[in-house]
Amino acid sequence: MNWLLPEHIADALPSEAAQIERLRRALLDLFRVHGYELVLPPLLEHLDSLLTGSGQDLKLRTFKLVDQLSGRTLGVRADMTPQVARIDAHLLNRQGVTRLCYCDSVLHTLPASLAASREPIQLGAEVFGYAGLAADREVIRLMADALNAAGVPAARIDLGHVGVFRALVDAAGLDGELEGALLQLLQAKDVPRLRERCSSMDEPWRSALLALPELYGDVTTLAVAARALPALPPITTALNALRELQAALPDLPLSFDLADLRGYRYHNGVVFAAYHAAFPSAVALGGRYDGVGKSFGRERPATGFSLDLRELARLTSARGEPEGAVLAPYVADCSALAEAIAALRAQGEVVVELLPDEQGGAGPLCDRQLVDADGQWVIRAINRDG
Amino acid sequence: MNWLLPEHIADALPSEAAQIERLRRALLDLFRVHGYELVLPPLLEHLDSLLTGSGQDLKLRTFKLVDQLSGRTLGVRADMTPQVARIDAHLLNRQGVTRLCYCDSVLHTLPASLAASREPIQLGAEVFGYAGLAADREVIRLMADALNAAGVPAARIDLGHVGVFRALVDAAGLDGELEGALLQLLQAKDVPRLRERCSSMDEPWRSALLALPELYGDVTTLAVAARALPALPPITTALNALRELQAALPDLPLSFDLADLRGYRYHNGVVFAAYHAAFPSAVALGGRYDGVGKSFGRERPATGFSLDLRELARLTSARGEPEGAVLAPYVADCSALAEAIAALRAQGEVVVELLPDEQGGAGPLCDRQLVDADGQWVIRAINRDG
Repeated sequence: MNWLLPEHIADALPSEAAQIERLRRALLDLFRVHGYELVLPPLLEHLDSLLTGSGQDLKLRTFKLVDQLSGRTLGVRADMTPQVARIDAHLLNRQGVTRLCYCDSVLHTLPASLAASREPIQLGAEVFGYAGLAADREVIRLMADALNAAGVPAARIDLGHVGVFRALVDAAGLDGELEGALLQLLQAKDVPRLRERCSSMDEPWRSALLALPELYGDVTTLAVAARALPALPPITTALNALRELQAALPDLPLSFDLADLRGYRYHNGVVFAAYHAAFPSAVALGGRYDGVGKSFGRERPATGFSLDLRELARLTSARGEPEGAVLAPYVADCSALAEAIAALRAQGEVVVELLPDEQGGAGPLCDRQLVDADGQWVIRAINRDG
Repeated sequence: MNWLLPEHIADALPSEAAQIERLRRALLDLFRVHGYELVLPPLLEHLDSLLTGSGQDLKLRTFKLVDQLSGRTLGVRADMTPQVARIDAHLLNRQGVTRLCYCDSVLHTLPASLAASREPIQLGAEVFGYAGLAADREVIRLMADALNAAGVPAARIDLGHVGVFRALVDAAGLDGELEGALLQLLQAKDVPRLRERCSSMDEPWRSALLALPELYGDVTTLAVAARALPALPPITTALNALRELQAALPDLPLSFDLADLRGYRYHNGVVFAAYHAAFPSAVALGGRYDGVGKSFGRERPATGFSLDLRELARLTSARGEPEGAVLAPYVADCSALAEAIAALRAQGEVVVELLPDEQGGAGPLCDRQLVDADGQWVIRAINRDG
């Protein structure tokens, strides 16, 4: 049983791998024509560098190793976003707006959900150096375009803003322990226990926190929120930002969720999540995270999104047509056959050459064959019985 | 100094990453039209599975981790070939010839040389299920075609055959310890110490082993070898195989090296290494390794080659032209501009959109800009001072 893989780890066999590769190229090409430059950060970094600016959650999800060259602790990346922020901050060191994209495997010590892989292929795009909402708008648009290009248009894109909850925590003067507890209850939408934890809290903070789990839905949510929440300046700013995005992206299926606090430790502005009808979790996630570069000594505004290409390939695999291939016979020293094969390949056709005395004949790939018709090599269908 | 990377680990920044991506696509497309199907084995496997059929060398180069789900020891792959052999043996389980290819990062605990990365991007192609020389010939040809496609044609392709040394070891009845010592000395071409270790050995084995380091060069080497080596059946078979490959690949710059024993523990037939003028080490390596599937419970003949895409990109980077990009101004709600941008992107042009009030202007990418010429959006060159 040498060949059993660890749990939540899998091979991608030819049809899945081909679909992943097709999507990879389509999405990286989309990013490219929008001016996003590809970068390839390494799998391994010093652990402290890899976790810079991130929370406890990422630390627990990161595999640790010892470097035989230095004796220091290394981590295998569990998220590429901090790596790309490091590249923007230190290696490119540009003054203006920088757009970067990436696509590579990350490893998680534990799966994010029962169905999740511990080796997602993280594909994403980030804009650095622009603090305004126009960058968030560009990224949300690009996320929607990417899902369209993959053939799985977003059924819904939820927008949220971590500034709302943060403003309430600050105004109510909550300590870190209570903040963490409320955060967990809000993420679980556990209203009864949320009510319990808020019972001794002053108004209007208590009512505002209890209102958050109900503040989701279409654009009218924003008007409801403006009435239900205290008019603290950061809350007004957050609601205005969401309203502005709704106005700027009228053709997207936007909805709002003020209790979506995924990545709260990391994000500091608008957050967004795209959903597909056939899949319960978000298929793409993103948001603004201006603070991260600071830990690398150079603070830069930042916003971006990413998705798991393995999950996306699974959602789209039913659509992948097998492309078929041409079987070529083995004929020693036949230059006409060699030329016919080369010409087909130059057109992008797959040509499988039989080897001398090969057993088994046409493999599962081939649907056509090259045959000699009076000195001309021509393509004929392969007739299979059954 | 949070942002210093471990030794022998590096980011690929935009121009290098773009070149790696270009080569990746060109070579995977080449493999595809030859009927090689892409597979994506995982980064992590149980250590015993990952090292199945391989030698001590791979074990030392493999990073080890503990699986929190099972408590078992996992390894991060240091070589993808055994993974692909496992996929052929167990997952595809086809009877006939199977052609697979792959391209992904591997990790090494220690760099293979002073200049080597500890995170090569291993790209390769393997043929399973065919024991004859025609499969080796196909793989050597594909390796040469791949280097041509990458723009770094092989200046020399060295062929060897591990059967020669193995036959001498068997015939001379050498124990494992002496076999290992001679192997090391032959790989280092350390003739004085080789002479020392062979001094008490019987003839003709002693002379034959001492002749090996001299048996390299053009096709005449094979005739010299036939005279210098005892006519053991496996040696005759090996020399005939090399002669046959030379005859079948007359247009390739083949030479011969009977002391090339890289991968001796792993290979069991013809081995090959391609060299480029500008680089001291082999740029691509391969050979026959029929034994590997056996450890997975299903023995299948196998031959293939692989290369490090990072190294290849470095050799070819001077040739990568920056492609340039078009800068688009920010104009609120201008549908004519949006259409012009979309049309350019659909043609594959990179269009970078300025964000409102963006500081810095044209980034390093842009060499042209979209300008409004009497109501028509047209492309003009960007004049830069200096």
